[in-house]
Amino acid sequence: MKKITLLGATGSIGIQTLDVIRNHPDKFKLYAIAFGQNVEHALSIINEFNPKRIVVKNAATKQKLESLINQHHIYIGNEGMIDISVDPETDILVNAVMGSVGLEATLQAIRAKKQIAIANKETLVTAGHLIMSEAKKHKVDLLPVDSEHSAIFQCLNGERRADVSQIILTASGGSFRDKTRAELADVTITDALNHPNWSMGAKITVDSATMMNKGLEVIEAHWLFDVPYNQIDVVLHKESVIHSMVEFSDRSVMAQLGTPDMRVPIQYALTYPMRLDLPQTKKLNLIEIGKLHFSKMDFERFPCLRLAFEAGRVGGTMTTVLNAANEIAVDLFLQGKISFLEIETLIERALDQHKVLNNPELKTIIEVDKQTRKLVESYID
Amino acid sequence: MKKITLLGATGSIGIQTLDVIRNHPDKFKLYAIAFGQNVEHALSIINEFNPKRIVVKNAATKQKLESLINQHHIYIGNEGMIDISVDPETDILVNAVMGSVGLEATLQAIRAKKQIAIANKETLVTAGHLIMSEAKKHKVDLLPVDSEHSAIFQCLNGERRADVSQIILTASGGSFRDKTRAELADVTITDALNHPNWSMGAKITVDSATMMNKGLEVIEAHWLFDVPYNQIDVVLHKESVIHSMVEFSDRSVMAQLGTPDMRVPIQYALTYPMRLDLPQTKKLNLIEIGKLHFSKMDFERFPCLRLAFEAGRVGGTMTTVLNAANEIAVDLFLQGKISFLEIETLIERALDQHKVLNNPELKTIIEVDKQTRKLVESYID
Repeated sequence: MKKITLLGATGSIGIQTLDVIRNHPDKFKLYAIAFGQNVEHALSIINEFNPKRIVVKNAATKQKLESLINQHHIYIGNEGMIDISVDPETDILVNAVMGSVGLEATLQAIRAKKQIAIANKETLVTAGHLIMSEAKKHKVDLLPVDSEHSAIFQCLNGERRADVSQIILTASGGSFRDKTRAELADVTITDALNHPNWSMGAKITVDSATMMNKGLEVIEAHWLFDVPYNQIDVVLHKESVIHSMVEFSDRSVMAQLGTPDMRVPIQYALTYPMRLDLPQTKKLNLIEIGKLHFSKMDFERFPCLRLAFEAGRVGGTMTTVLNAANEIAVDLFLQGKISFLEIETLIERALDQHKVLNNPELKTIIEVDKQTRKLVESYID
Repeated sequence: MKKITLLGATGSIGIQTLDVIRNHPDKFKLYAIAFGQNVEHALSIINEFNPKRIVVKNAATKQKLESLINQHHIYIGNEGMIDISVDPETDILVNAVMGSVGLEATLQAIRAKKQIAIANKETLVTAGHLIMSEAKKHKVDLLPVDSEHSAIFQCLNGERRADVSQIILTASGGSFRDKTRAELADVTITDALNHPNWSMGAKITVDSATMMNKGLEVIEAHWLFDVPYNQIDVVLHKESVIHSMVEFSDRSVMAQLGTPDMRVPIQYALTYPMRLDLPQTKKLNLIEIGKLHFSKMDFERFPCLRLAFEAGRVGGTMTTVLNAANEIAVDLFLQGKISFLEIETLIERALDQHKVLNNPELKTIIEVDKQTRKLVESYID
């Protein structure tokens, strides 16, 4: 029985992680949860799974929850997340929070030698060098939950890293894959949230539409698999059936396929190196699908992907700026304060203004992150 | 430096194996070869690679070769093949002969604990139970060279066999995939030898056209990967880009892809668990290919595949009959003595007439093989 601490329990990945735990009560137990402010949803999780420890975003949420349940000590914020992540009873930390908020908890959990299932790509984007060097030092497995990175991780099973010649990330193209650049000027929030293949949270769905999601994944892949950027490629594959691929030195390409269902990579991260049944997931039926399509990624059409490659190559604090600027820009878009195409404009402006710091420490990263958020918000004042 | 003994040096797989050896002179040395009667071709191999030992099909070929070279002791037939296969200097045996002729040499090489690269599917089809039990007993790796089985082998890398839920063999459909049943009545030998994707020997190209090749592969997969027939599926995939797939219990599907080039699986069998460069092979370019197609296999259209599944399920000597009857029927077709559709008729007739013997010993298999060949030849007298 593995005890799981879940950061981001009420989010999209959190909910699906709970579904995996629910399906295998003999294998997994929910030990602790952290969530933001969705008390109603959290309450149903608490009632069903009875986690021993609970962390909420702020004092108001704590007060609200305390008025509804009696038996729990409730903790707050980053300190609380760190505390449940390194708790001796935690076997696996599932980091499924949104944005860079899970960074410190993940770092501490690595030092405490926890198995880490990492759904939070911003953690790696903003502090990949710190995370990976700590993971190496403490011999901790970082198990990716992102479907693309889980696919790559599965393709690398039993292989030597030295034999890898290329990582090929597939991209569905997001909500606006069939729109021209001109048509993108007028798209609405509702349009952006309508992803063709995956059902996900709002932020990542917008990131898919701008292709920044793929950009963040490129940086994530760079860190997770220790592959230089010139060995990472992105291919448009609208069916999202091939979740990603790895090409080896002998031209052999391994791919992982499946119906789009996040429970597959989530469960794999929890069961690795074994697998478990997942009968609720639809069996892949290639005959029914008939055709898989592949086409070239257009870096003009999707400038956010270009920005991500550029920031990744520069490295240092540049990816922290990329990520923080993107988080704020997407938030401003979701609030209706900027247009869809202004997302990329604000990010590029923040990147252009930034003087990169190499090998930043955690406190530098946190500071740059904070400053960037303020800066991007200031752009629309 | 691994010393390689190559059975079937002048055949299609043999030639490509030599290409792999040629490309990696620091890794591989051709130690011994066996070939049939193509003295001219063998001579060029002998001049280039200078193998220490040579085996030919018969005394006439021996005499002819001896008149052309001086420095070699030349051996004959099955005895000779066994001898070079178990030779203490042999590290890897590549069994690339055509038909069931390589069976005894393979069995003996397993007992001598050689690493076996097996391109000869008939060996497993006709005596899978003997080969696999000996391989298990002597802890010998049987490394498949067939592109489909190499793909499956690569998909199983690092996985537990218990987690496998299905093996999915892909089939290009062969030379006649676009013809109706009625159109097949009049096809010629030249038509049959024109395979759309792979450049292979005559026998296997005809087997691809009848789909018996896929049938033999189903039986081969059953034995190599210890998977029951109801967990083996065949999907039509005309591009031959996905070489085969494995579905696991969590609905995750692993696939191996590449441009059709037999040097990839051959080299993998020689280098496993590592990989080596193969720069001559064309890099897979999915963007250039654009689309991958999948469709249902039609068992009415391809009765040989149905016969193979049926023979496989019955087991015992039934697969020996399937294989022997097929070899003779294809040979008769290539000699212009029967029509294309008569291939399946003769095989089915032989299978119908056969009273199965379970768990046959090697001598029983050899006897049934011989009788079946005579029987099928007698059908056209």
